Amino acid sequence: MTDSYEPTERTIPTRSRDRASYDRAAVHSILDESYVCHLGFVRDGAPVVLPTLYGRIGDRLYVHGSTGSRPLRMAGAGGAEAPGDEEAPGLPVCLTVTHVDGLVLARSAFHHSINYRSVVVHGTARQVTDPEELRTALDALVDHVVPGRSYDSRPANAKELAATAVLRLDLDEVSAKVRTGGPNDEPEDATLPHWSGVIPVRKTYGTPIPADDHDPAIALPDYLSVL
Amino acid sequence: MTDSYEPTERTIPTRSRDRASYDRAAVHSILDESYVCHLGFVRDGAPVVLPTLYGRIGDRLYVHGSTGSRPLRMAGAGGAEAPGDEEAPGLPVCLTVTHVDGLVLARSAFHHSINYRSVVVHGTARQVTDPEELRTALDALVDHVVPGRSYDSRPANAKELAATAVLRLDLDEVSAKVRTGGPNDEPEDATLPHWSGVIPVRKTYGTPIPADDHDPAIALPDYLSVL
Repeated sequence: MTDSYEPTERTIPTRSRDRASYDRAAVHSILDESYVCHLGFVRDGAPVVLPTLYGRIGDRLYVHGSTGSRPLRMAGAGGAEAPGDEEAPGLPVCLTVTHVDGLVLARSAFHHSINYRSVVVHGTARQVTDPEELRTALDALVDHVVPGRSYDSRPANAKELAATAVLRLDLDEVSAKVRTGGPNDEPEDATLPHWSGVIPVRKTYGTPIPADDHDPAIALPDYLSVL
Repeated sequence: MTDSYEPTERTIPTRSRDRASYDRAAVHSILDESYVCHLGFVRDGAPVVLPTLYGRIGDRLYVHGSTGSRPLRMAGAGGAEAPGDEEAPGLPVCLTVTHVDGLVLARSAFHHSINYRSVVVHGTARQVTDPEELRTALDALVDHVVPGRSYDSRPANAKELAATAVLRLDLDEVSAKVRTGGPNDEPEDATLPHWSGVIPVRKTYGTPIPADDHDPAIALPDYLSVL
């Protein structure tokens, strides 16, 4: 395995190419900092984009089906309905993850920007039908949201597993794009009387709110207190 | 104008219909709390999803072209290259905005969830070619990120306007989807020894970082200190 993904015509941006990266570690790091992606697919010739939970195991993403029963039906096949199929045809998708890190305020309206890190994955999603892979994928999905949580919850039973659909998407045609730093004002704008700089943006966690029927004897676990 | 958008086959979810809303004020409120959307379109038959800045004026969204020169070219027409066209054919898009409000930790892995608010817009994006509308749209884009900022920056000059492309997308076929509240555990799981509840998630702003060549005599404007 090399340290970088191979660029393709689809993953080479038409603009700001200096912001693009194919570094495997950089891509994984951006993916691992979030758990909600935007999954795009084509339905009746038109684009659909839905927010969806995902997890990562190595070079494979797993996408949860709860918000996406339409794409899941389209990616289906394999499994019980077509036991003879060796490989489901799958669903062409584009999966995108974006972190906003800062608002970039330039002196000119034109040079306003956003500091961000994003990953775009192109590929074909296929429904996970192997029970063992499904269990592993569900653990990855839970642990992607809260690392360590899958060990501190009741695993899915047979009925729940049957009601859960997960798509698999290999990381192969993938790129990251990153903007950092301050505004790039025109030299002639340097003396304009406008504040310029960056407003950092962060995702933060508030005080955990126990469920209504929570047993007060159960302390907040360590993996939550570090969020 | 009614208070709600008309549901369509595309905007009625196949699952969790109780979470769907077509209320105009609710949709606008979710849209106005962010400035980065995920714009989906179809290219060579395959889906593409790109993070992009947007602004709103009434029932119209404006999407910035800087990360999307490909969709912009596809939505083009009108303007200089086809001066006789009355209406550009436009680009079918799906524009999605998502806020994550909380991590919902149930006692069972199956009932883990996310509290979120999302808006999905289906429609046809067209490039803005009218100079007056383009100026108004650019102000809206800047003010969507930082309200009031367009009045405190140098407006785009003719050269910058020519280098900027903006897509217009009418809010017509649109829905919101919202999940709130605690975990929905199975009654028989109530006594399991796992912490359950919600971890609130928020977007917060850090201390503004002035640009390297910032004039210290220029104070932080009020519209930034309230972020």
